[in-house]
Amino acid sequence: MEFTVNQVAAILQGEVVGNGNEVVKSIGKIQDAERGSITFLANPKYENFIYSSNASAVIVNKDFLPTTPVSVTLIKVDDPYSSFTKLLEEYDRITSYSKVGVEEPSFISAQTNVGDGLYRGAFSYIGSNVTIGNNVKIYPHAYIGDNVTIGNDCIFYSGSKIYSGTEIGDNCIFHSGVVIGSDGFGFAPQQDGTYKKIPQLGNVIVKDNVEIGANTVVDCATLGSTLLDQGVKLDNLVQIAHNVEIGANTVIASQTGISGSTKLGKNCIVAGQVGLVGHIEIADRVTLAAKTGLAKSVKKEGAVKFGYPAMDHKAYLKSHAVFRNLPELRERVNELEKKVLNLPAN
Amino acid sequence: MEFTVNQVAAILQGEVVGNGNEVVKSIGKIQDAERGSITFLANPKYENFIYSSNASAVIVNKDFLPTTPVSVTLIKVDDPYSSFTKLLEEYDRITSYSKVGVEEPSFISAQTNVGDGLYRGAFSYIGSNVTIGNNVKIYPHAYIGDNVTIGNDCIFYSGSKIYSGTEIGDNCIFHSGVVIGSDGFGFAPQQDGTYKKIPQLGNVIVKDNVEIGANTVVDCATLGSTLLDQGVKLDNLVQIAHNVEIGANTVIASQTGISGSTKLGKNCIVAGQVGLVGHIEIADRVTLAAKTGLAKSVKKEGAVKFGYPAMDHKAYLKSHAVFRNLPELRERVNELEKKVLNLPAN
Amino acid sequence: MEFTVNQVAAILQGEVVGNGNEVVKSIGKIQDAERGSITFLANPKYENFIYSSNASAVIVNKDFLPTTPVSVTLIKVDDPYSSFTKLLEEYDRITSYSKVGVEEPSFISAQTNVGDGLYRGAFSYIGSNVTIGNNVKIYPHAYIGDNVTIGNDCIFYSGSKIYSGTEIGDNCIFHSGVVIGSDGFGFAPQQDGTYKKIPQLGNVIVKDNVEIGANTVVDCATLGSTLLDQGVKLDNLVQIAHNVEIGANTVIASQTGISGSTKLGKNCIVAGQVGLVGHIEIADRVTLAAKTGLAKSVKKEGAVKFGYPAMDHKAYLKSHAVFRNLPELRERVNELEKKVLNLPAN
Repeated sequence: MEFTVNQVAAILQGEVVGNGNEVVKSIGKIQDAERGSITFLANPKYENFIYSSNASAVIVNKDFLPTTPVSVTLIKVDDPYSSFTKLLEEYDRITSYSKVGVEEPSFISAQTNVGDGLYRGAFSYIGSNVTIGNNVKIYPHAYIGDNVTIGNDCIFYSGSKIYSGTEIGDNCIFHSGVVIGSDGFGFAPQQDGTYKKIPQLGNVIVKDNVEIGANTVVDCATLGSTLLDQGVKLDNLVQIAHNVEIGANTVIASQTGISGSTKLGKNCIVAGQVGLVGHIEIADRVTLAAKTGLAKSVKKEGAVKFGYPAMDHKAYLKSHAVFRNLPELRERVNELEKKVLNLPAN
Repeated sequence: MEFTVNQVAAILQGEVVGNGNEVVKSIGKIQDAERGSITFLANPKYENFIYSSNASAVIVNKDFLPTTPVSVTLIKVDDPYSSFTKLLEEYDRITSYSKVGVEEPSFISAQTNVGDGLYRGAFSYIGSNVTIGNNVKIYPHAYIGDNVTIGNDCIFYSGSKIYSGTEIGDNCIFHSGVVIGSDGFGFAPQQDGTYKKIPQLGNVIVKDNVEIGANTVVDCATLGSTLLDQGVKLDNLVQIAHNVEIGANTVIASQTGISGSTKLGKNCIVAGQVGLVGHIEIADRVTLAAKTGLAKSVKKEGAVKFGYPAMDHKAYLKSHAVFRNLPELRERVNELEKKVLNLPAN
Repeated sequence: MEFTVNQVAAILQGEVVGNGNEVVKSIGKIQDAERGSITFLANPKYENFIYSSNASAVIVNKDFLPTTPVSVTLIKVDDPYSSFTKLLEEYDRITSYSKVGVEEPSFISAQTNVGDGLYRGAFSYIGSNVTIGNNVKIYPHAYIGDNVTIGNDCIFYSGSKIYSGTEIGDNCIFHSGVVIGSDGFGFAPQQDGTYKKIPQLGNVIVKDNVEIGANTVVDCATLGSTLLDQGVKLDNLVQIAHNVEIGANTVIASQTGISGSTKLGKNCIVAGQVGLVGHIEIADRVTLAAKTGLAKSVKKEGAVKFGYPAMDHKAYLKSHAVFRNLPELRERVNELEKKVLNLPAN
């Protein structure tokens, strides 16, 4: 893959400042880009690198004015970050070769419907009564249980596990070690102190355009369905308990856990290591800061919560600012008590 | 599967109010039960659904009196929730077909004893010198290392991994991605700043009736055994470090981690995202609330701990109530100082 | 394996006190060592066990003086713990038989270079254009993607997953369920509220002597490389996001998460359930206590941080000591206000 800066600028509808005939062959980060590579500057924090960069071209904001002369060729655009992303996609499209066909040994039950363009890696397993759309990639050691339905253009990376009865839409990605549909954590306490398993008879429904990170777990419902609505993105090592419902386009960062039957709205942003208790409801566009513990429903759309038990984000920060100096506050109270004690009695 | 309400009531030893000849074919939640399904009402919060439900029958408490007429047939019982659970079990027993036999290719070493009723899924692996009881189900991609012993009626779901030397009792369930017996995290610091691995030569013992959730990890002991006593239930993504011992019927929710050599008593309840430091002991029937960080032993049976560092649950809540208003408390101290400063000197 | 105490003492360069002809056959913990076993005493907390132990020999510090007579034979050394570790290694070396050869069915692409002493377990998968050094052990269900390079003496336990393009040095260990090189969590928000995947085109570089615990995930870089420098040790269920760099000999305990592009220095110690925000830098030899949440860079080498948002360790403990008694502090302020209100106006 080799382009001139002028060609790249044309794709990005940008303006070239410098040598448009410079050749670019690779994509890199501004800190360590080499001759022949193209990079971008979006965060002003990295501006100093542009003056020493070996890159052949840098995508910059149309308002960017160097404070000292630069040797690299600039491509000026409205939004350097999204232009760069566009370039990555183009690069990805050209360089990634798509797996197709069957590697042996692999296992597929007789009673199964599969579409065109399927890749079945070695040691992949497809159970009985499974329906699979077009252009689905099932990597080695992926497991598709019985009675699963899968739409078009899905990817199941090596070792992803889909329990029986799961329903999956189009254009979903499951990274290695993902488990979908394992039993919810439901046990009935008995009088002798033991616990009796409550059968988990429901399933998981995953709508279109969902991506699920490595080693994340989504339990099936006790009855009915655990739901990941369209466009949901889950990071690695996330826990989604039975009967949880997550609204469209909600993103959840790594190591967060959602307890049973809790419902999240649309377009929420949940940071990492957050915990939500069961049986609560979260409104649309709510943000939960990292490590927050949420024990109550959030009814206000767009609210931002922080801390544990969770408070409004700003209130938490204010309280924490006092917390940092609590020993001093106590000392002031000590001093006040001494002074007031020494006052003449009234 | 099709029953009349009278037949179901007979199983549950309940009293029918309404049409006992009504036919039920499926089980559902009260919010979205359809015609022909049976559901239950245990939580009063859901009572309003009973007046609009399409269900054919609802299991209710024997004391339940509708505030307005209901069209559904009622089955009155002592405990609707446990009756419903009983029904689920019955349904599960009837509808789930049990896997038996061998799918090929699968791998089993020559020096291995297996009982009756074994299911060995495609790509399952059984090492040498393994002993397996009756009615054990080993799903595709499950791995049973060398020298493992397994009792009767155990299930190893797809991709569960049992390291060499593990001892497993009867009636245990291992969900996908579970890892049992991986090396404990033990390294000896060297003078040059590097770490030297301490061989982890022990194993894991899992007693009867243990269930372990997806992607949970239980490390082997350095020496001796990491122990999960009978009836222990671990949720998904839990971490159990080397030489930990967990008492009978203790349940641990998702994403909790127990550090090395810590011992938990019997019938403890540990919520999600809790962390326990190593080398401490927890008495029987202790409860640890979600996200608690426990750095000291808990000697009092039945204690409830919360926060980090953990405090008694009520004490933590009281302190946190003041924390919420710390800026106001500081302001009051500011005001007091002004007033006291302005007092006539004594 | 059977030695006399004199033989063991010779290996450890220790001094025998008692019967040097006593025979030892196994290794145990001081609490439950049986006749014929050897154990050690390093932590004074366990001293009382030495007086009742059935062990045949105990390794003790050269300064150890029993307070009452002991029946066991002592081996006096400079450092009992490291002597014992040495013994464990020796035991491990003698008793563990190393897997070698190929179990079938397994999968290996044609275009692949492998060294001597390779073990390829049944159902292991090796993609195309892979280079593998000598004495590498690839257990059942391990997956090595395309274009991966692996040094000498590495172990990939059952079900470890290495995505395409990963570069691995010598003497590394990957436990079951480890995922290396999964896509970073990168999505560009769109105007309609959906998210567009940002292609993750980088890789992961793992240097020499790295060990990674079960079900831990290391994402690939968006561009460039996520880096685990030599001697890094990661516990189970750890999350390492895209473009993170971890310095040499840094150890990270279970369930900790490091967000994107953050850089940790050398010889840091990160405890369990810690969270680090993205795009920060941590100096060398920094310690982060369990459950700490770090939102800012730490520039001071050797700093110890605790709490969330993180504070200096001692400052956090002091503030928390006041937090424990906050209700009392508020009561004292209430009392002060009453007294000051009752003072004669000035």
